[in-house]
Amino acid sequence: SRAQEEDLHQTRTLLRLCVDRYFLSPGEANMELFRRGMSCRYGPLGTELRRNLLEQWWHSVSRTTAQVFGINTLSSSSGDTATGAPRKLNIVENEHIKQILEEKEVSKDLLIQKIQVLLQRSPTGRTSCLQGALEQFVPSLELVNRKLPFGLAETGLCFQPSGGSGCPGEVTRASLVWFCSARASSQWLDHWTRQRLKWWRKFALSPSDFSSSDVPEEELEKAASRGVRIIYSFPWGEETLETLWNRGDAELLRTHGGDRSKLQCRDGRKSVPHVISVTANVDRGALAFLSNSLQTLKKEDSRQRLQQRKVLKLHPVLAPVKVALDIGRGASVELRQVCEGLLKEFMEAKISTWPGYLETSAGQLNTKYDEMGVLFTVVVNENTLESGLLQVRSRDTTVRETMHISEIKKFLSRYITAADNV
Amino acid sequence: SRAQEEDLHQTRTLLRLCVDRYFLSPGEANMELFRRGMSCRYGPLGTELRRNLLEQWWHSVSRTTAQVFGINTLSSSSGDTATGAPRKLNIVENEHIKQILEEKEVSKDLLIQKIQVLLQRSPTGRTSCLQGALEQFVPSLELVNRKLPFGLAETGLCFQPSGGSGCPGEVTRASLVWFCSARASSQWLDHWTRQRLKWWRKFALSPSDFSSSDVPEEELEKAASRGVRIIYSFPWGEETLETLWNRGDAELLRTHGGDRSKLQCRDGRKSVPHVISVTANVDRGALAFLSNSLQTLKKEDSRQRLQQRKVLKLHPVLAPVKVALDIGRGASVELRQVCEGLLKEFMEAKISTWPGYLETSAGQLNTKYDEMGVLFTVVVNENTLESGLLQVRSRDTTVRETMHISEIKKFLSRYITAADNV
Repeated sequence: SRAQEEDLHQTRTLLRLCVDRYFLSPGEANMELFRRGMSCRYGPLGTELRRNLLEQWWHSVSRTTAQVFGINTLSSSSGDTATGAPRKLNIVENEHIKQILEEKEVSKDLLIQKIQVLLQRSPTGRTSCLQGALEQFVPSLELVNRKLPFGLAETGLCFQPSGGSGCPGEVTRASLVWFCSARASSQWLDHWTRQRLKWWRKFALSPSDFSSSDVPEEELEKAASRGVRIIYSFPWGEETLETLWNRGDAELLRTHGGDRSKLQCRDGRKSVPHVISVTANVDRGALAFLSNSLQTLKKEDSRQRLQQRKVLKLHPVLAPVKVALDIGRGASVELRQVCEGLLKEFMEAKISTWPGYLETSAGQLNTKYDEMGVLFTVVVNENTLESGLLQVRSRDTTVRETMHISEIKKFLSRYITAADNV
Repeated sequence: SRAQEEDLHQTRTLLRLCVDRYFLSPGEANMELFRRGMSCRYGPLGTELRRNLLEQWWHSVSRTTAQVFGINTLSSSSGDTATGAPRKLNIVENEHIKQILEEKEVSKDLLIQKIQVLLQRSPTGRTSCLQGALEQFVPSLELVNRKLPFGLAETGLCFQPSGGSGCPGEVTRASLVWFCSARASSQWLDHWTRQRLKWWRKFALSPSDFSSSDVPEEELEKAASRGVRIIYSFPWGEETLETLWNRGDAELLRTHGGDRSKLQCRDGRKSVPHVISVTANVDRGALAFLSNSLQTLKKEDSRQRLQQRKVLKLHPVLAPVKVALDIGRGASVELRQVCEGLLKEFMEAKISTWPGYLETSAGQLNTKYDEMGVLFTVVVNENTLESGLLQVRSRDTTVRETMHISEIKKFLSRYITAADNV
């Protein structure tokens, strides 16, 4: 249908732009990984966008509540943990399996047995951060004097089984595991759902594309009594960005060998806490914000030809490049020195800067920077050398302002800080 | 010998303190992983310390030079890349190997063959970030207009083969791959060695424990013409924190199928660049700074008994907790409210704060905070409610100052910023 074609076109435009503007490395396979919400090879802008997203997640979850502690467990765990979770991915040393396969005088049965033992002992790649947090529950009790509720936050690499066909992949997850009393668990699930949805929408250009919905009963995970998904409407359909589960106490008990006394917490009466898990897919999150912020505007150029202007209106906090530095008309050696000075000044102030003055191909600079989502473009020209005045163009208003060189850093810092505190 | 015993004692003291003060999760195996410079299960303080270290590394390498771009590749790569690098770790899906092992009516030879094919197709876990950067070289040329030198930076999870015995492990690496002209490569190696050593020493309490030394000729990697190690003297001996190699162009050529024209860069004349790799072990780096900053001071208490005071004098930028908030004498409900207000204020200003007022067991608070490396302890007491005055104790001077509640946030922010800009 027409609508489907339009959606396909939108998807292609988005992925094409991601590759052309250094968010993604080129290659069909890489683009497909990204579209499926998996980790892939990111270019400099994609790397920075994902860093910013992870930083914001971390800050909102672990640095706004005194009861959330950041932890770091391992992406692969040794084989001999008796967690009861089914093992899906084995990390096997080539050397070891080769030794077994090359042994002569070994029956087929013995060979199979040896391989099975090797697999049993080999580390497992994690598919989520849940198990790590459950294991860290007991060591964390001292931190909180056994008082509920509290949470353990972690971000990191997880593996994703291929699901039958193809290759297993990677995904970067951000995870909060929240321990609370059984009777408050339902309210906490609601609390965290509201919190998380608000967080996603905070950075959105059209917040209504982000929504939440209950997991239907038939799709509930075994241990969970209720689940909520935070969903983004991509051009190709809805996809889950984050999942919240009310998991009860079964997995926590199993992880600690059913020892209730070790797990009991104070919360009015003594009890084994229930677990709420909150897990975001950071790679798909980055894709959602890219998709959400891409605006295609039609406008007439000076010769009345219809032109398409694509702008990536990424939230100022997420935008990987805050300012681009360019050279206009004038003596290039001196202007370059001015640019180098400004670059140093911006970098020291931790303002992410694009050294546009290093590129020779001027071309359609504004088009390029709009597609990169660059917030401001600063042009240094012969005027700057005389009067200290610069041209500053805004991505969002397309307005060009004149500003004195001594004011630009403060102006940018204030703009970014203001956007952060909304 | 006596000296060896002393060193062993120091090592035990350090690791014990790391566990007691929430840097590491408990467990002998976990402590041993950390001591060997591998990723392990970190507690909240260890997680934050490593985050700070990674952030500082990233800033110093990718945000101070216009020619360094951050990238993000994958920790596991699909099996069919013809890089020539020997595959060491396979990531194998349990489901797939089980299917092969359970097939009946299959000869031993066919079984072996099927397993070999599965291994060939399964993803490989990376042991360094080098290969990913070499692959991203060509897509990056557009960024720099084929102009040398430039670099690609990446931080992330790498796997570490077990080396014969035991289990393969993980390590977090920070990597810069620097592309430059052949004739300048030796100077660039020196440049980056100086830079990196300066960086490590910047955060050290005793900078002379960090040193650099050339890799002896017999230990050179195959492709490399020269190597330099940055070394830390641990109580148990010297260990490598970071390694710099002058790798020539062989690996870059091999990665891109020997296609010289694709790789040629402008640098006076056209040429295939040489590669300098700079790789740090961030886990061992965290251990080095912990070891370096642990001071054991003997002092007499009021009854003239000899006491040991342990202080973790971590650099203010690295210290995972900048300030602890505690309650002194006074009406606890009101004081708690004051603490909550301050906590919120500090967190919004991104000052990492320890909510000590939530703990009931007061005990030896200063001892505890000194061992956690907390920069300042703020005590709110009945005086605060009347006059707005707080007690602020410094970790480094042990001096207690009185400060007005309206000044404390500014004081802390300034202190941290000043330490950052040294």
